[in-house]
Amino acid sequence: MKTTLIYSGGLDSTVLLYWLLHNRHEVIAVSFDYGQRHKREIESAKTICRLLDVAHETVAIPPLRGSVLTDAGDMPHGHYADENMKQTVVPNRNMVMLAYAGSLAIASGCRAVAYGCHAGDHTIYPDCRVEFVNAMRAAFELCDWSQLQLLTPFVHEDKTEIVRIGKRLCVPFDLTWTCYEGGQQPCGQCGSCVERNEALANA
Amino acid sequence: MKTTLIYSGGLDSTVLLYWLLHNRHEVIAVSFDYGQRHKREIESAKTICRLLDVAHETVAIPPLRGSVLTDAGDMPHGHYADENMKQTVVPNRNMVMLAYAGSLAIASGCRAVAYGCHAGDHTIYPDCRVEFVNAMRAAFELCDWSQLQLLTPFVHEDKTEIVRIGKRLCVPFDLTWTCYEGGQQPCGQCGSCVERNEALANA
Repeated sequence: MKTTLIYSGGLDSTVLLYWLLHNRHEVIAVSFDYGQRHKREIESAKTICRLLDVAHETVAIPPLRGSVLTDAGDMPHGHYADENMKQTVVPNRNMVMLAYAGSLAIASGCRAVAYGCHAGDHTIYPDCRVEFVNAMRAAFELCDWSQLQLLTPFVHEDKTEIVRIGKRLCVPFDLTWTCYEGGQQPCGQCGSCVERNEALANA
Repeated sequence: MKTTLIYSGGLDSTVLLYWLLHNRHEVIAVSFDYGQRHKREIESAKTICRLLDVAHETVAIPPLRGSVLTDAGDMPHGHYADENMKQTVVPNRNMVMLAYAGSLAIASGCRAVAYGCHAGDHTIYPDCRVEFVNAMRAAFELCDWSQLQLLTPFVHEDKTEIVRIGKRLCVPFDLTWTCYEGGQQPCGQCGSCVERNEALANA
């Protein structure tokens, strides 16, 4: 199947890329520049797609406002479940990326869109909830005259399980990028770094 | 209620703008430049918002591909219901505009997004079907921690009925723009012109 992957260059979507290739999808990967500080992740996406000879496109969309990931302000540090991590919610980001990926998918003859939402995100990000994903799946099936599938194979998995899947698929974790800060090296302190390091240790 | 309106400057969304103001909504209108040939409609949107002292924003999103409205090719002429009018479907356009409007709404403290889909569009545009709108309504209610409403008061009305509503609300139809061609005057022959002129005559 020809599938459009929403590909950040982070750990989850990189494991999903390997999972899709393992399951014989022909993948077109798309990364979104939405004004995030951590544009560094897009370099990881490009590098890994080159390595795998997968088509990759970066789409710059107008900056999304209303989050510490895109506006000025201090990045909260600590564990993901903490209340202050809600400052990192970018309003409706996932619907925007899904909608755009859906448009690209239809225009390029793909019959599915894949994205790497997972169970660990649910407490912070409203648009990672299973109910939201299911509503978007219903909308995807109706947005074109032929059904467009929404593939979210990790929606019930936590990050540790995703790392385990990635290990079995020989994912080069050191090439992926997770940190929310805009630096050249991971900060190790933001919620995203903390969760990544815990998952790598647990798996 | 503070409401974000997806506002093309065309007949339907202009009647919706007047309907919202009549129903005491505080409106923020947003027009999307998605690479359409008929950007002329955005000038109409600006003019009417100035007239009504309504906040207006134009958002340029990356061009959507795969339609005669955005790519090269001859615009089909004739009645909307004709099969060749399907060339004017812009893949997933409404989901993209809804998603972006939802993001802007949350970031600017609006609790609703309004858009002017109506019954006349259903035979051509998959993303104007009631089922699609209802799926997006469900997704809107879940995309943020507090519910975002999706207002589509004309979803069961045809264009003639929308013109009737507009007449009661004293909408200046001559300031709205409907034509799909990129000219300075309406062509009178594209599906959009044909439908508009029929509705104005019928009402």
